[in-house]
Amino acid sequence: MRELELIAELRDLLGAHSPRVVRWLGDDAAVVQGRAYAVTSVDTMVEGVHFRSGELSPAEIGHRALAGALSDLAAMGAEAGEAYLALGVPSGSDAELLRGLVRGAGALAREYDVTIAGGDLTSAPSLFLSFTVVGWVDDPGELVGRGGARSGDLVGVTGSLGGSGAGLALLSARTSLHGSGAVVADAAIVQGAVNAELAAGLRRRYATPAPRLRAGRALALAGASAMIDISDGLATDAAQIARASGCALELSPAALPLAPGVAEVASALGQDPGAFAVQAGEDYELCFTVPPEARVAIETALEGLSDARPGVSWIGKVVSGEPSEVRFDAGSQQLAGYEHQL
Amino acid sequence: MRELELIAELRDLLGAHSPRVVRWLGDDAAVVQGRAYAVTSVDTMVEGVHFRSGELSPAEIGHRALAGALSDLAAMGAEAGEAYLALGVPSGSDAELLRGLVRGAGALAREYDVTIAGGDLTSAPSLFLSFTVVGWVDDPGELVGRGGARSGDLVGVTGSLGGSGAGLALLSARTSLHGSGAVVADAAIVQGAVNAELAAGLRRRYATPAPRLRAGRALALAGASAMIDISDGLATDAAQIARASGCALELSPAALPLAPGVAEVASALGQDPGAFAVQAGEDYELCFTVPPEARVAIETALEGLSDARPGVSWIGKVVSGEPSEVRFDAGSQQLAGYEHQL
Repeated sequence: MRELELIAELRDLLGAHSPRVVRWLGDDAAVVQGRAYAVTSVDTMVEGVHFRSGELSPAEIGHRALAGALSDLAAMGAEAGEAYLALGVPSGSDAELLRGLVRGAGALAREYDVTIAGGDLTSAPSLFLSFTVVGWVDDPGELVGRGGARSGDLVGVTGSLGGSGAGLALLSARTSLHGSGAVVADAAIVQGAVNAELAAGLRRRYATPAPRLRAGRALALAGASAMIDISDGLATDAAQIARASGCALELSPAALPLAPGVAEVASALGQDPGAFAVQAGEDYELCFTVPPEARVAIETALEGLSDARPGVSWIGKVVSGEPSEVRFDAGSQQLAGYEHQL
Repeated sequence: MRELELIAELRDLLGAHSPRVVRWLGDDAAVVQGRAYAVTSVDTMVEGVHFRSGELSPAEIGHRALAGALSDLAAMGAEAGEAYLALGVPSGSDAELLRGLVRGAGALAREYDVTIAGGDLTSAPSLFLSFTVVGWVDDPGELVGRGGARSGDLVGVTGSLGGSGAGLALLSARTSLHGSGAVVADAAIVQGAVNAELAAGLRRRYATPAPRLRAGRALALAGASAMIDISDGLATDAAQIARASGCALELSPAALPLAPGVAEVASALGQDPGAFAVQAGEDYELCFTVPPEARVAIETALEGLSDARPGVSWIGKVVSGEPSEVRFDAGSQQLAGYEHQL
């Protein structure tokens, strides 16, 4: 297949675009009708660092990369608008890889009314996808940053934790692709810890995470004081709120909402389920703080939202203390960053 | 040096930001005051595909990557606003590499009042930089796409051509990093073709190209009907205008404005200087079409603009014919694409 035909096919796969997109793919730049404030974030996933091709389908890789980027917009409380893709593909890759990547990202984009409005395709030594996502808001006061937590605020989290980490463990008997990514257990033992249905659910949490865009918007409007998405693990991400807000967070591992099957997988790995949920990242749930008086409003706002099941869990509180410190009932944990947004 | 300190240092290197940037680096997303229409483009440069580290300093690599992206905004006639950087760096890279990349991009950004407002830094098997750049315009009618050329229009080009390709040839006796990138001549023979001053000028054209943002805006306002930046070589890029506009372009190699020293380098490579200028890319000049009656307005608009020296060259005309065809006096040339914007 000629390259230009493949490009045309990829455009078709991306499907329809929002009427706000005045010029779509195919020119030097996309042109989109703006609103008062643009909210923009970049998230990159690299083969061998953030995923392994053998463990995920191309469509899952495309979905996951876009979900990771959109999750940052969710954490601001912004309404998602457009996404732009920088795609690096090894020379000689099969066209089916490209189709799958674009199909997976395109399907997720449609689910959230996001238009993939432009991008750049290039050869690269190894596969990478970088999504720049743009959300919009009419009033910047509606957005929630990391720096607004105050002593006395409650700390909440949406949904459930540890599912993505457990899903990865099921795939590979690894709990992380990062520094601590050595094989830690016999794959068969880990896989035997849960039944097929639970295993499939955990795999989905890892392979096709859902950005909590509706929950993030609802939390912002209902009075969250600070918010971050859980991409690097609760311990690391909560510390970002603590640092940016100049306070400490006191969290209770026992209060963490574990995803179904996480306890079993953690035990098979020889790990404490609570600690596992704290360390494992890529759940893309939202961790947020809220003044105590807004607690009921927050719970009400999330009721019935499909992407906030099983609702809010209150996992700790904001206290004065060393900025960036996250204390757990079981002790104190320092920031262990590996990747950084600039 | 701890990673967080390095990140803080990189932020400092990026310096001040526009008052339109409400939230800068350091949160889940940047927040920027919008205007009526956002104009957005993505451009990626990958080590070994678009540059070789040994041939360029880190600051030049950073400059060049941002220049390539901003050039797409120039080709639309948009006013540049913000840039977002996805940066992949091999594990164990020296901090000085990161500093240099950011310093080079930051300096170019300041020169054009562009704010680098966010980004993502990750480990990667090999170095890559992807810039998503955002321009703004109040009236989308002011923008110029690729599809507006009409039979009878004149074809013009800003500045001079072939300089970047000649600069690369001086560096490496290669004329391209792409498929045809084999060493084609003895380095000493090529380097002996020009004096030190010309050589330095050609190297700058390759290493630190200037996006023609002011010229692009002036051309858009003065009535250009179609426009593209010359990144892949005039032959390839002019064909994009022809295809998008549904017409053919008839160009005269003899009319091409060769950069000083290009003729000498091309001869040393055993190539026809005109053909060399047509094939070599990355000059980041603008190729545009214009109705004959707007010719004087275009020439007047570019007079005195520092980034349009030595002014406009009229290199051909738009004719009816097979869309995407670019005919040269010397024959006919078909599109030879390698990379694609989506």
